Amino acid sequence: MHVEQATSKQLQQWYEELTAKHQSFVVGGLNLDLTRGKPSASQLSLANELDGALGGNFLSDDGTDTRNYGGIDGLPGMKKLAAEILGSKPEEVLIGGNSSLTLMYFSILFAWQFGLNGPGSAWRDEPAVKFLCPVPGYDRHFAICEEFGIEMINVPMDDNGPDMDAVEALIRDDQSIKGIWCVPKYSNPTGCIYSADTVERLAKLGNIASANFRVFYDNAYVVHDLTDTPAELPNIMDYCRQHGTEDSVLQFGSTSKVTFAGAGVAFMACSANNLKALKNHLGIATIGPDKVNQLRHLRVIASMDQLRAHMMKHAELLCPRFDCVLKHLQDSFGSSDLGQWSTPTGGYFISFDTRPGLASEVVKLAAEAGVKLTPAGATFPYGKDPEDRNIRLAPSFPTVKDIDKAMAVFCNAVKLASVSQRLKR
Amino acid sequence: MHVEQATSKQLQQWYEELTAKHQSFVVGGLNLDLTRGKPSASQLSLANELDGALGGNFLSDDGTDTRNYGGIDGLPGMKKLAAEILGSKPEEVLIGGNSSLTLMYFSILFAWQFGLNGPGSAWRDEPAVKFLCPVPGYDRHFAICEEFGIEMINVPMDDNGPDMDAVEALIRDDQSIKGIWCVPKYSNPTGCIYSADTVERLAKLGNIASANFRVFYDNAYVVHDLTDTPAELPNIMDYCRQHGTEDSVLQFGSTSKVTFAGAGVAFMACSANNLKALKNHLGIATIGPDKVNQLRHLRVIASMDQLRAHMMKHAELLCPRFDCVLKHLQDSFGSSDLGQWSTPTGGYFISFDTRPGLASEVVKLAAEAGVKLTPAGATFPYGKDPEDRNIRLAPSFPTVKDIDKAMAVFCNAVKLASVSQRLKR
Repeated sequence: MHVEQATSKQLQQWYEELTAKHQSFVVGGLNLDLTRGKPSASQLSLANELDGALGGNFLSDDGTDTRNYGGIDGLPGMKKLAAEILGSKPEEVLIGGNSSLTLMYFSILFAWQFGLNGPGSAWRDEPAVKFLCPVPGYDRHFAICEEFGIEMINVPMDDNGPDMDAVEALIRDDQSIKGIWCVPKYSNPTGCIYSADTVERLAKLGNIASANFRVFYDNAYVVHDLTDTPAELPNIMDYCRQHGTEDSVLQFGSTSKVTFAGAGVAFMACSANNLKALKNHLGIATIGPDKVNQLRHLRVIASMDQLRAHMMKHAELLCPRFDCVLKHLQDSFGSSDLGQWSTPTGGYFISFDTRPGLASEVVKLAAEAGVKLTPAGATFPYGKDPEDRNIRLAPSFPTVKDIDKAMAVFCNAVKLASVSQRLKR
Repeated sequence: MHVEQATSKQLQQWYEELTAKHQSFVVGGLNLDLTRGKPSASQLSLANELDGALGGNFLSDDGTDTRNYGGIDGLPGMKKLAAEILGSKPEEVLIGGNSSLTLMYFSILFAWQFGLNGPGSAWRDEPAVKFLCPVPGYDRHFAICEEFGIEMINVPMDDNGPDMDAVEALIRDDQSIKGIWCVPKYSNPTGCIYSADTVERLAKLGNIASANFRVFYDNAYVVHDLTDTPAELPNIMDYCRQHGTEDSVLQFGSTSKVTFAGAGVAFMACSANNLKALKNHLGIATIGPDKVNQLRHLRVIASMDQLRAHMMKHAELLCPRFDCVLKHLQDSFGSSDLGQWSTPTGGYFISFDTRPGLASEVVKLAAEAGVKLTPAGATFPYGKDPEDRNIRLAPSFPTVKDIDKAMAVFCNAVKLASVSQRLKR
């Protein structure tokens, strides 16, 4: 289906057929949801042994009674594992609670309110504070910036990550840019993996940006491969050490999509300077993270080998879901001018671009037919997709059968919206 | 021992005897710690059944899969229990992570940065922001204020709680006072229980203070009785409803000293208006609290009756420790002019006042003899006890045998410091 070359008559015929099909979905009364990057119950059950994992022994290897107060940065064993996951050193790691988002929020808060480079470095004292936001991206990152009144600047993404020419030019031009959001592996939502060149250039930003600039490197999907021959993400801290920019990068991760989404262990890694500043302020805000939950995790997933084996079980559950979405997209749009999409090899999302100006209409049509999609624009700062094209598809939670039904609705909605738009021209 | 009436000769003789005894402690090489309000391992073990409590069933009564994302304010069952603990309504409760301190920090942060009464109510936009701090009080409360540059004003405490005449006069006189810290039951460290009059007058502050004033009501020890005939703390929210000041009080609590100190469940209760504002901002900062840990707690402590029975087991472990401290104090200072102390019927602390100007010296002497005490001044804003008198004794963690040894050192140090001071006059 190519709407550009189609005759009026052909378009009109398609319009009628697609509308009829859409109406059949509407009366069908579906109630399906492709909005959230939530693990399915089957995935969560892979970690059920966390309950009871301690067998009454609450002492960690280093002798800590995990039940009691104490320790702002987590158990040594958990730091070691987190360091391996993030490609960092244990002494550069801080273990958090159940939410890496909270660690990101605290990092922004402390940089804003107090400054991470000592007195005089607080963002709130700057005339303006701006963040670069590679788009499409993650709405919860953007929400933190919006909450603090940080101006967000869109930067385009391609298969290698953010457009680094644009990133460097913007930073050279404007020292009020204090951060950039990155999801370097299986980026949310495009699924791309940043190239070595991109990672190295991100590591070098510290040399052209202001001293209180930070790369917010949300490595949420670093071990979330869908294949057993995953691409390697180059280690950003190695590049930082090479270029003397260790203080410019804050890395984040968690086990939310490894064990329990709402009851995992979050962590971050950064330079000794950053860690010291963060711990000083975090020590005011909390009695410390839940060490019992850390120990539970260590008893169930004690090494990177065990972690990788565990992630392969997730992949087994996720692959058929991704395949189902991709098959629908290929069958419907493989030879068409109606959309482009990503074919990720890991992570939680498939990113779909409609023809310009149609994403909102597609989301609306799908909703009419009982299929909830992530709101159009959600993947952009301020919820505004300038071209109204991007839709994030999240296939992890529903069953394959439900995804199959939902994708039939979605593909028809994309076609109908495209034909309607073409007819109006 | 009365140093005021003693002769020089008597003082000199005491000085020599006390110094000799102190030296014997110094060479004894003790290593004891009365600093932290930490539960002992025996207390923590009372809740060991939390591990494995779920028996593979992660669904809460309302059908929530606690393992997954979702829900910013906690499980309905946990809200119900927290409401009973705090004397509030379930719909007024927000469940947090493992740290009520974090809920207090977020409340201050949101009031500071965004305002809890909508646009224009942010404290950061005020010419000055001050807090009333009943003293002696809790150092971590004061640390949050200090972190945000909030000016702290000392208010004296007596057996009925803060001096409410002083509190009301200060607030009437200065609308830049935006909060007051309260630990209404078994106050940290004096152990006093606020009287009905005090609680009602706290509830009425909302009618004389500015609209964005809040009582930070840290009800940390509300169920932490040491006797089976505990005094009742009047319900502050009932008074608030009576006086139309529901928005002026934020209540906090946790199971940190019920189950696991570092892995309990924190909660807060407040008006619908406050709750809405807090949830809006909290939704930016976290994916939501750990619901699995909430469910674990509900499986082990399902009702107030079970909670009370559980707390009596804590009391059994704590009472001999408190008794040991109190016996030493009574034996040493019962008929003396060397100190006053509290005799709490719950909570975690005993507050001791030396003669003016001696607390630092006593802490120093005890440290020389291998007994760590809470730093003098810690119970006051900015760590400054204007009279240098107050020492917080925390007997929960050490064994009775160790407390016995530590208190012998402490009492001798108080005597030695008192005699030395008198001799110098």
